[in-house]
Amino acid sequence: MEWKGELVNEQRTVKVALLGAGSVGSQVARLLLEDGEEFSRRAGAKIELVGIAVRNLDSKRDVELPRELLTTDAENLILQADFVIELMGGISPARELITQALESGADVVTANKALLASHGPELFGIAERVGAQLHYEAAVAGAIPIIRPLRENLAGDRIERILGIVNGTTNYILDRMYSKGDTFEESLRIATELGYAEADPTADIEGYDAQQKAAILASIAFHTEVPLEQVHREGITQVTIEQIDDAKRAGFVVKLLAICERVPGADGAEAISARVYPALVPEAHPLASVHGGNNAVFVEAAAAGPLMFYGAGAGGIQTASAVLGDLVSAARRHVLGGPGLGESMDANLTVLDSGEIRTRYHIALGVTDAPGVLAEVARTFAEHHVSVSTLEQARTEDDHAATIVIVTHLATDGALQRLVESLGELDVVTRIAGVLRVEGGAE
Amino acid sequence: MEWKGELVNEQRTVKVALLGAGSVGSQVARLLLEDGEEFSRRAGAKIELVGIAVRNLDSKRDVELPRELLTTDAENLILQADFVIELMGGISPARELITQALESGADVVTANKALLASHGPELFGIAERVGAQLHYEAAVAGAIPIIRPLRENLAGDRIERILGIVNGTTNYILDRMYSKGDTFEESLRIATELGYAEADPTADIEGYDAQQKAAILASIAFHTEVPLEQVHREGITQVTIEQIDDAKRAGFVVKLLAICERVPGADGAEAISARVYPALVPEAHPLASVHGGNNAVFVEAAAAGPLMFYGAGAGGIQTASAVLGDLVSAARRHVLGGPGLGESMDANLTVLDSGEIRTRYHIALGVTDAPGVLAEVARTFAEHHVSVSTLEQARTEDDHAATIVIVTHLATDGALQRLVESLGELDVVTRIAGVLRVEGGAE
Repeated sequence: MEWKGELVNEQRTVKVALLGAGSVGSQVARLLLEDGEEFSRRAGAKIELVGIAVRNLDSKRDVELPRELLTTDAENLILQADFVIELMGGISPARELITQALESGADVVTANKALLASHGPELFGIAERVGAQLHYEAAVAGAIPIIRPLRENLAGDRIERILGIVNGTTNYILDRMYSKGDTFEESLRIATELGYAEADPTADIEGYDAQQKAAILASIAFHTEVPLEQVHREGITQVTIEQIDDAKRAGFVVKLLAICERVPGADGAEAISARVYPALVPEAHPLASVHGGNNAVFVEAAAAGPLMFYGAGAGGIQTASAVLGDLVSAARRHVLGGPGLGESMDANLTVLDSGEIRTRYHIALGVTDAPGVLAEVARTFAEHHVSVSTLEQARTEDDHAATIVIVTHLATDGALQRLVESLGELDVVTRIAGVLRVEGGAE
Repeated sequence: MEWKGELVNEQRTVKVALLGAGSVGSQVARLLLEDGEEFSRRAGAKIELVGIAVRNLDSKRDVELPRELLTTDAENLILQADFVIELMGGISPARELITQALESGADVVTANKALLASHGPELFGIAERVGAQLHYEAAVAGAIPIIRPLRENLAGDRIERILGIVNGTTNYILDRMYSKGDTFEESLRIATELGYAEADPTADIEGYDAQQKAAILASIAFHTEVPLEQVHREGITQVTIEQIDDAKRAGFVVKLLAICERVPGADGAEAISARVYPALVPEAHPLASVHGGNNAVFVEAAAAGPLMFYGAGAGGIQTASAVLGDLVSAARRHVLGGPGLGESMDANLTVLDSGEIRTRYHIALGVTDAPGVLAEVARTFAEHHVSVSTLEQARTEDDHAATIVIVTHLATDGALQRLVESLGELDVVTRIAGVLRVEGGAE
């Protein structure tokens, strides 16, 4: 199928339909209305906003929008458009409307990470079949360019690992716990007050948002379909001030990381892993200095070496910048005659189960302050074939109890989990005060 | 003209000619020969290296290359190619060969910043006329994605300012002076020993390399032709340890910056400035923590806010990654049917003369230690309508002399230069110990 825009190429007009007018959508509409002429000059075609589909015509919005552009009939609006910008979020009806738009030959720009992480392959398949394009730079890390660099700049390289701080809410909370000493609950309360966290923060603090982004990043980086359910996920609700203090004393900061990496598979074949959890990062690592609500993605590639992409998280205006970048550059490409890049999922690597990943643990143990405790702890490590990198007696809490902090060498996540279970069963161990993984440092 | 590759699209083969086999070229050849199958899968077409043009068949090279691929006849090699990768460097014969390649309908990938900065518009004009593409991600900051993010990701935004550390040699030298206290000469000697500086370091240390990159970045960011001679340039050979120590004490580091920004023009119309000089950057600024030979580009855009792109500088293997990213993504686009983005130079803003730029100065003055000195210095500032932000008596060198360090508020570069001249003429001023601009902070 020809791209719809070709039909109107002689007048050189690109008709844009916007679905959704929330915090991102209203900014996209405002910028299109205010700077549309500038964007049109850059694209080489008149970019015209033909309508905005909303659920309720009378909702209060961040930006006042011309009443005559608003409609509740998204399906009819799509029929008039060469480009459809989907910013409704959620799975349905976004999935059906994007399908309709692609099937009609329109290009689609979306920031809908939940939809891409769960139904990406289905939608990319439709786009490829009909020769339309699905753009989604805005879905990960707001305005920070990451999708295009991974897909195009690194197309002739081999991406080994991605460590991403891709959720601003959790980075704000963890940074506040680290720098101010506030508890998780107190930091969350302040994040909510300041607008860094939503009224229901579950998607952020439980890591679901980062999990979706990890699935998207891993699939692009490794040219492999990465189903959301194969991305191991842990949130930050269990992170304590005590853990953050222990980490700080050892020269680390705690960050919620989205990790995508190539790893050896069980059969020696190449495999990949995608996972999300709070982890210790060495203070000297570039990710350690990403403060507040900012995002950053650290990429290691075989030829390019380490790269980092840094910027503000996914606020309304920042995400609007990414959406409009997709729109204007894709419109320009169409005017010049031809589509952009399709997806390539041809590597088709195995996605490793999280238990098979090799990682390092930072373990804080409450122990009785008696002779032979260290020997018993050490014996348990040996039994699980996990070797100790550093061991420190951190605090003596009262006359009969102490805390020891251990950082391990690399071992499989499964072995480390079993080790922690065994430690918990020792008589000399009064409690497992905290367990966090260590990422981004030497082995 | 149709893209040549269309002719071979049915067999889906993309024929690649490589011009030059120096430190970048030999790595590109190696990776194409080793990982060509992987790249071909990603592109959806067989990527075939058909030949490598060199000056001397028997030169010693970093990588051993198959003898049967080498030729000294670049013109004939180009005739066989859909893609021409130019890595010879220099203006001639690179300019003539790229012209020949584009005219024949081949796409060109180049890392030749000197050629682009001096003859970019001519070459982009040829490409546009014949419908071929000229790719050059590798020309600025090696493997760090910056050209594509500026052209595409930020196509729907308004770039306000770019501050770039785009030369690894000078960053290595300045970082060494800052962290080890070595002099410029000593740091340059070590940089040469370690391979960070070339035998003739002039292009790096005098800022010519950064000037070329600033011209390229400014033209993309502001959609305006920026002739190389309109980019003000100062190198780092005059930077002293004393200046770096003064800066450190005041909470700054010294970096050689390529600066591109929108500024109000003389007539109130919009204008731009592109310039290169060593400048003070606040320690808390993300650019301040770019150490050693690394590069980073800090971009401020109206909607996206601040972004930073960080990575290794332009080594052979890193630059090869950028070249191959251009090749594979462009090949894939051709297989899918259609070109990439052309250049857009339609904003056509005025490029401001450097004297009209508003900046801040960090001035160290040797003065006689006598009553009335400060009053006389202050009167001179007032005469030139430059206001003082901070003033500090830094050192008393002996009984009769002292050094004072002044940081100004914003003023035009011209006014600041005239101020420094007048200060030099004061009897109480024994010497101008150092003058550096301040960038990247509040005003």
